[in-house]
Amino acid sequence: MDPTAPNSGGGAAADATGPTNTTVTLPPLTLRDVPRLPSALASPSPSPVVPNPISRHPYFHPPSTFYISPGDVSLRHAFFDLASASPSPLLAYRRAGPRGDLAVDPARARAALVTCGGLCPGLNTVLRELVVGLHELYGVRDVFGVAAGYRGFYGGDEDHVRLEPAAADDWHKKGGTVLKTTRGGFDLGKIVDGIVSRGYTQVYAIGGDGTMRGAVAIFQEFKRRGLNISITGIPKTVDNDIGIIDRSFGFQTAVEIAQQAIDAAHVEAVSAVNGIGLVKLMGRSTGHIALHATLSSRDVDCCLIPEVDFCLEGKGGLFEFLYERIKKKGHAVVVVAEGAGQELIHRTDDQKREQDESGNIVFLDVGPWLKSELGRWWKREHPDELFTVKYIDPTYMIRAVPANATDNLYCTLLAHSAIHGIMAGFTGFVPGPINGTYSYIPLEDIAVAKNPVDVNDHKWAWVRSVTNQPDFLMSQA
Amino acid sequence: MDPTAPNSGGGAAADATGPTNTTVTLPPLTLRDVPRLPSALASPSPSPVVPNPISRHPYFHPPSTFYISPGDVSLRHAFFDLASASPSPLLAYRRAGPRGDLAVDPARARAALVTCGGLCPGLNTVLRELVVGLHELYGVRDVFGVAAGYRGFYGGDEDHVRLEPAAADDWHKKGGTVLKTTRGGFDLGKIVDGIVSRGYTQVYAIGGDGTMRGAVAIFQEFKRRGLNISITGIPKTVDNDIGIIDRSFGFQTAVEIAQQAIDAAHVEAVSAVNGIGLVKLMGRSTGHIALHATLSSRDVDCCLIPEVDFCLEGKGGLFEFLYERIKKKGHAVVVVAEGAGQELIHRTDDQKREQDESGNIVFLDVGPWLKSELGRWWKREHPDELFTVKYIDPTYMIRAVPANATDNLYCTLLAHSAIHGIMAGFTGFVPGPINGTYSYIPLEDIAVAKNPVDVNDHKWAWVRSVTNQPDFLMSQA
Amino acid sequence: MDPTAPNSGGGAAADATGPTNTTVTLPPLTLRDVPRLPSALASPSPSPVVPNPISRHPYFHPPSTFYISPGDVSLRHAFFDLASASPSPLLAYRRAGPRGDLAVDPARARAALVTCGGLCPGLNTVLRELVVGLHELYGVRDVFGVAAGYRGFYGGDEDHVRLEPAAADDWHKKGGTVLKTTRGGFDLGKIVDGIVSRGYTQVYAIGGDGTMRGAVAIFQEFKRRGLNISITGIPKTVDNDIGIIDRSFGFQTAVEIAQQAIDAAHVEAVSAVNGIGLVKLMGRSTGHIALHATLSSRDVDCCLIPEVDFCLEGKGGLFEFLYERIKKKGHAVVVVAEGAGQELIHRTDDQKREQDESGNIVFLDVGPWLKSELGRWWKREHPDELFTVKYIDPTYMIRAVPANATDNLYCTLLAHSAIHGIMAGFTGFVPGPINGTYSYIPLEDIAVAKNPVDVNDHKWAWVRSVTNQPDFLMSQA
Amino acid sequence: MDPTAPNSGGGAAADATGPTNTTVTLPPLTLRDVPRLPSALASPSPSPVVPNPISRHPYFHPPSTFYISPGDVSLRHAFFDLASASPSPLLAYRRAGPRGDLAVDPARARAALVTCGGLCPGLNTVLRELVVGLHELYGVRDVFGVAAGYRGFYGGDEDHVRLEPAAADDWHKKGGTVLKTTRGGFDLGKIVDGIVSRGYTQVYAIGGDGTMRGAVAIFQEFKRRGLNISITGIPKTVDNDIGIIDRSFGFQTAVEIAQQAIDAAHVEAVSAVNGIGLVKLMGRSTGHIALHATLSSRDVDCCLIPEVDFCLEGKGGLFEFLYERIKKKGHAVVVVAEGAGQELIHRTDDQKREQDESGNIVFLDVGPWLKSELGRWWKREHPDELFTVKYIDPTYMIRAVPANATDNLYCTLLAHSAIHGIMAGFTGFVPGPINGTYSYIPLEDIAVAKNPVDVNDHKWAWVRSVTNQPDFLMSQA
Repeated sequence: MDPTAPNSGGGAAADATGPTNTTVTLPPLTLRDVPRLPSALASPSPSPVVPNPISRHPYFHPPSTFYISPGDVSLRHAFFDLASASPSPLLAYRRAGPRGDLAVDPARARAALVTCGGLCPGLNTVLRELVVGLHELYGVRDVFGVAAGYRGFYGGDEDHVRLEPAAADDWHKKGGTVLKTTRGGFDLGKIVDGIVSRGYTQVYAIGGDGTMRGAVAIFQEFKRRGLNISITGIPKTVDNDIGIIDRSFGFQTAVEIAQQAIDAAHVEAVSAVNGIGLVKLMGRSTGHIALHATLSSRDVDCCLIPEVDFCLEGKGGLFEFLYERIKKKGHAVVVVAEGAGQELIHRTDDQKREQDESGNIVFLDVGPWLKSELGRWWKREHPDELFTVKYIDPTYMIRAVPANATDNLYCTLLAHSAIHGIMAGFTGFVPGPINGTYSYIPLEDIAVAKNPVDVNDHKWAWVRSVTNQPDFLMSQA
Repeated sequence: MDPTAPNSGGGAAADATGPTNTTVTLPPLTLRDVPRLPSALASPSPSPVVPNPISRHPYFHPPSTFYISPGDVSLRHAFFDLASASPSPLLAYRRAGPRGDLAVDPARARAALVTCGGLCPGLNTVLRELVVGLHELYGVRDVFGVAAGYRGFYGGDEDHVRLEPAAADDWHKKGGTVLKTTRGGFDLGKIVDGIVSRGYTQVYAIGGDGTMRGAVAIFQEFKRRGLNISITGIPKTVDNDIGIIDRSFGFQTAVEIAQQAIDAAHVEAVSAVNGIGLVKLMGRSTGHIALHATLSSRDVDCCLIPEVDFCLEGKGGLFEFLYERIKKKGHAVVVVAEGAGQELIHRTDDQKREQDESGNIVFLDVGPWLKSELGRWWKREHPDELFTVKYIDPTYMIRAVPANATDNLYCTLLAHSAIHGIMAGFTGFVPGPINGTYSYIPLEDIAVAKNPVDVNDHKWAWVRSVTNQPDFLMSQA
Repeated sequence: MDPTAPNSGGGAAADATGPTNTTVTLPPLTLRDVPRLPSALASPSPSPVVPNPISRHPYFHPPSTFYISPGDVSLRHAFFDLASASPSPLLAYRRAGPRGDLAVDPARARAALVTCGGLCPGLNTVLRELVVGLHELYGVRDVFGVAAGYRGFYGGDEDHVRLEPAAADDWHKKGGTVLKTTRGGFDLGKIVDGIVSRGYTQVYAIGGDGTMRGAVAIFQEFKRRGLNISITGIPKTVDNDIGIIDRSFGFQTAVEIAQQAIDAAHVEAVSAVNGIGLVKLMGRSTGHIALHATLSSRDVDCCLIPEVDFCLEGKGGLFEFLYERIKKKGHAVVVVAEGAGQELIHRTDDQKREQDESGNIVFLDVGPWLKSELGRWWKREHPDELFTVKYIDPTYMIRAVPANATDNLYCTLLAHSAIHGIMAGFTGFVPGPINGTYSYIPLEDIAVAKNPVDVNDHKWAWVRSVTNQPDFLMSQA
Repeated sequence: MDPTAPNSGGGAAADATGPTNTTVTLPPLTLRDVPRLPSALASPSPSPVVPNPISRHPYFHPPSTFYISPGDVSLRHAFFDLASASPSPLLAYRRAGPRGDLAVDPARARAALVTCGGLCPGLNTVLRELVVGLHELYGVRDVFGVAAGYRGFYGGDEDHVRLEPAAADDWHKKGGTVLKTTRGGFDLGKIVDGIVSRGYTQVYAIGGDGTMRGAVAIFQEFKRRGLNISITGIPKTVDNDIGIIDRSFGFQTAVEIAQQAIDAAHVEAVSAVNGIGLVKLMGRSTGHIALHATLSSRDVDCCLIPEVDFCLEGKGGLFEFLYERIKKKGHAVVVVAEGAGQELIHRTDDQKREQDESGNIVFLDVGPWLKSELGRWWKREHPDELFTVKYIDPTYMIRAVPANATDNLYCTLLAHSAIHGIMAGFTGFVPGPINGTYSYIPLEDIAVAKNPVDVNDHKWAWVRSVTNQPDFLMSQA
């Protein structure tokens, strides 16, 4: 199946210096479909079947091609090795978008929106577009914001606020979330009871991996109870650590703002004698922000991410590398993802036991630790040389900004995709772009899909060629 | 092939509310390959075959998976309608990236970089990465910038400047191009003579559609003369009007900066009695910037693009729509792409004949025209009502900014992809992402590939739902 | 009086290389006082006298030094030539700030706020602080915004909107004005009738020189009718063309944002062969923005302002200067204030007669004219040389931005000064900083005080040394 | 002397509602002069006397008023209380600016520029303008940058770098300092020996209060040795804690950038249940940045500065105030200057003894301490209520940015003022604006002049009225 082999047409014909065409056969394709509401699966026909109200829009007359057809799917992988001896089967998902026929009656819909966990640029854009989209695209009148995260579902009336498009008009220009957000508080029974008692028929849960796992549990509880209530999850992780989808919202804004911190660290480093600028960027399990920020900045001499081990001292270690870099250039800039080097930091017994409210193990702060270790090492190894290290932790200045234009558009398409899917009768799904095509993915697949930086990939290779940082291999031996 | 049909598994089984899998067969796949240098096609084996020097990198030891294999391809389309009665054949391109074996000896390579046409955010990042990548990835020592566009190839020595990585270090933080750029001056014979006489062995041409067509001609002239000189084109079009690739560099930066102009127009409009803010954005043949800027901003009441006809006066026309919007909201904001409404503007005979230096027909300035027509109409129809229209043309403030982080990363991957392709012996190609995968596309395919806004697509539908602007249909009747 | 003369102590004593002290006598000082309300001048004592409610603030206990004393004045000129043969008499104004005793009863006060003319950064901050300050500092409950400028005073109820602190909370982060603003519509009788009939007891008029002249007329009409209504003017002129006060609000924000336009023009110029970047900045009668933007930017080769004549062609003219600069540096950047060169532009008979709504003569657009003249000249004089001129008019993108931090603070102090003065019984005044001290100045003095750029001063000299632009003297001969 | 007393003209005459004039007599004025070089004091006449080369500028022909005359002085105080029983004597300083005759021959001048201490926005602008101004205004060809702070004077050749205008062209767009800066290393004998041995005839020392005290010592040592070497100090303190001058450079840029941190803290606070945003801003001995940032932002609920005591717990304490604010508004934002509350923080014996390199006592980090105390208090007092505090320390992101336009202009005028003074033969002085007029002040006066926030002044009162924070009085009892 190798197209460059002589028999596949990549040969040396006289006109071969122009473009050439070669044809091959592909493995079979499997569609990984999302669940539906019981009512949407009813036989002989789903109930209700409602024509999409967009068709009756006063101004906009959608062309026939506007609606997604039942056969519209997106491919999980957009590239292959045709020469592979054992090609893996191809996977596809349903395309997101409006359907001509709804399985949900907008007039009876009652939507609940909830945000959980930490801030992320774009949260308010997602909320705005859910409110505006539900009202203006589908005429849903009952849209509620649930405050204080999942625990708001079993909170008082003050935690359930009716949301109107007029009030939501400029939310996308604001950082944070207009719904108060919290961590923890997940109590499945009380949550589902609360949803039922307040009459919600659709739930939009926006949050991190803990929130997605919670949404899976809620979805399964709905199913167990036989409820015609739909749920969709919108993954919120500024770290971009969720798999299958192309990227998470807010990520590009974070990379953009991280440039300011790296710039500042660079300025501090070059303005000092033997200066080091150290920037900690978000990324507990993955180093995407660190990696992208490094590639966008070019001022970084070393990028440390959770996916790659490193050692501090000794031949081939980080400190020696930095010392040599300083001798050569006069300064150095280090970017470290918050999850990097966790296993190197000395942890007290208490710290070994501790967990955060979402049940994650407590991360120790790699930034001050690295600064302190570096200072100690320099004082010991080079006591007569001046040395300065400036440490910057821009976390809260990054995650609190409004989304940039790219993320604003992305959040809009996400929110609208979620609404279209819910209205079509899907449930237990996540909307998201796969190789650029907005699609629906089963919530339970997303809840377990990781997205580590592929250190065999070219992007990491490019980081390496930009920074010229070593493998830290010898010292790992 | 419809996965929702009963026999394809989308049925109503008891557990059907969980994710389901369905399998189908795909049409055959055609690889659309790029040309190669004559020497790379030599038989029995290409000459030279040089191991990739990245393998000898002092710090970075690329894993076995680092190099692109001959069978690595990317898919042209990442989504399909499985239910389609007559599915179109699938198309693939070669994946971009480093190859283990080179068909070009870096020690003998002599690269020429040229930028043509107007400015675009990211130009300097592409140039920086070509210089740095050629030097640091491949050890190419002879890299030259050709000033003044294509005409620089037959210009004097002052138009051929040796470029070094140290000097290029902060180019990505600067707007514009460090090479002087011009329009026109394309003289095929003199250009190829100049390339030959200066001993260039690889040409990187960065420019718009005219520049790409020029690159095709140069490629064909190389082939006609049997020269072992490679050429690659890097499409530069802030308008995003080139097809096949996901988007053009600088586009997202442009959308980002356009927000400032729309914000200003919005402020002017809301601060006046019956105020209209009018913003002209770049986009001669396509309205991508206008569309994306509108979707990112939300303050826009009407978005006019070249792909959609509109009319000014009469029932259902633009002016009536704006008047009603003002009566309702007190103000209105209009975004117009520069290519919109060209056929409506009165053109003198001289203007009908005129062409610009690249041979394009001269565009009349839609912004002042629209402002003037609107003022005239208001004065005539509503003489007793106050009225203000503020017109903003941010063109040069947009295209002169440095690339944002997203575009900086994109430009890096583009430039490195170009280098890897050239070193592998490809020629007459364009590097670019296709559904997220960097690939090589025949130059001649790119030179004719348009990328109009798909007004049947959801993005345009979303614009319509954001702005609630009418179809302008009645008036076209 | 010369301190450097031997007898004044500036001599050559052995220890004279340390700091020395010399004492001289100053001319007498004249206090230029502002008018008061008739009730505040009543004899034997003003009526009412109300203790300042700030003294009863629940949290803040002002120290005895908090209130301005009746003798507190500020000096008009903070520097002198002691050696001057005929020193001019010194002038002083009342210091602005809270008084211990009020001449106005906050409980009966009814304030009207109006904005007139074009936008200026900080307008909304002034409005916010008037609303918040009246409520929170003095407990004034009746604060109204008058929409549509002066004509709103005789408009309908919809033009008189009650303003509350809660709604005003984030106005300072918004560009423009929350009150619709208009030009013209000044009808003295109808305005004063409107003020009286709506029961306003204090008027805050924010606007340009026309608005200040209107405020003088209103003040005099109040006096003529014997009304106990006070009026204060807050000069709004982004051009900084009002005298006596240190600078006008929004000016520094404008200079800041103008950098973006100059940067863009500079990038366009350096990226072209023989490129010129041309930026028009605000400034009809004065060139302060052009001058400050030039000094802050350093990329400017020539700065043209209304206060300095120039000529285009011939020996020593602008075009020759630019040509030489291009030959030397490869490019040039020109900043032109909108009022520069008005007498050079060919004006049709119609244009000679035209006036704008505020009665100003119509300014012709110097930017496109200069661009066109320059292009014509180059084509004639240097037909075989490439040439590009890019013209940027950032006016609406500058004036619509929110105030920066410096201007936000300034607007706050201005608004609070206005309130304190009104509450003390002053009227017909303008608040403003004089050599850094906030003071009260008679409205009629401000209405005629011009603030041209002092071309004999060092700041203009610095522009000249930064740009090295010539005197354009020869050509004026 | 009270102008409002009947006999001083502020009376109740019929036309008294117009502006009035009153005349008074002022106390005598004392000129506080700066030292001069021995050669400039030589008798019978200074040697050399060189005409200012600006008069021979090829393009610019300075008017007669261009040069500062010997009698030009600026007033120390621009406001008075005329009613004061015992008015203090008036003080004046020499105006800064170019003199017609120089006491220094530019052809023999050899200038040394040094930066000491931490970064501050505008450092590079000052350096740029010293280099460009010395070259272009006066034709000084020998300008050197001394690296590594004061210790560079006795360092090797690599610490003495010749500086040229072309290379300095874009320094003002860069943060940090192009000269490596350090703290400490002050060794008077070795510094002056180094200055003499390298033939420097003028020294420009840019740094904080320690640096200014060092400059006084160097000046006195020059005097003691009878050297014709001049020294000027340019105070660098982003905190604005130096007296006499209006403000220090970089301060306004710092206030501007601090807004971003406050915005982020505000977003974090409002997005949480019972959220507090805590921002630490620079200001060891003075709270100017905190105060100005608070006044510019309006989102701050409490501003803590070194000049005002506060207490944490108990009735009327900070924590109770914040709890009440949260109950009322749902969130709170606190800005704390780094020097605030130092006496409240528990200090170990080691910490009590510690000093930094400049000999200052070590400041403990008030931010994390306050965050921790607050968390402990909440957990104890309100264990059942959710609570979040997000802490932001933007220090290095603030001080590393380039100067904004306002500071760029200011730095230019400072640098040029320094050069003009040195060329006129002055030494041991500091240039700086006094009530808006650039002046020369004896270095020894500046070295001891503090600039605390005047908490009796209106600006602090405004902070109090903006934040409504209490006096913390009860708890201090």
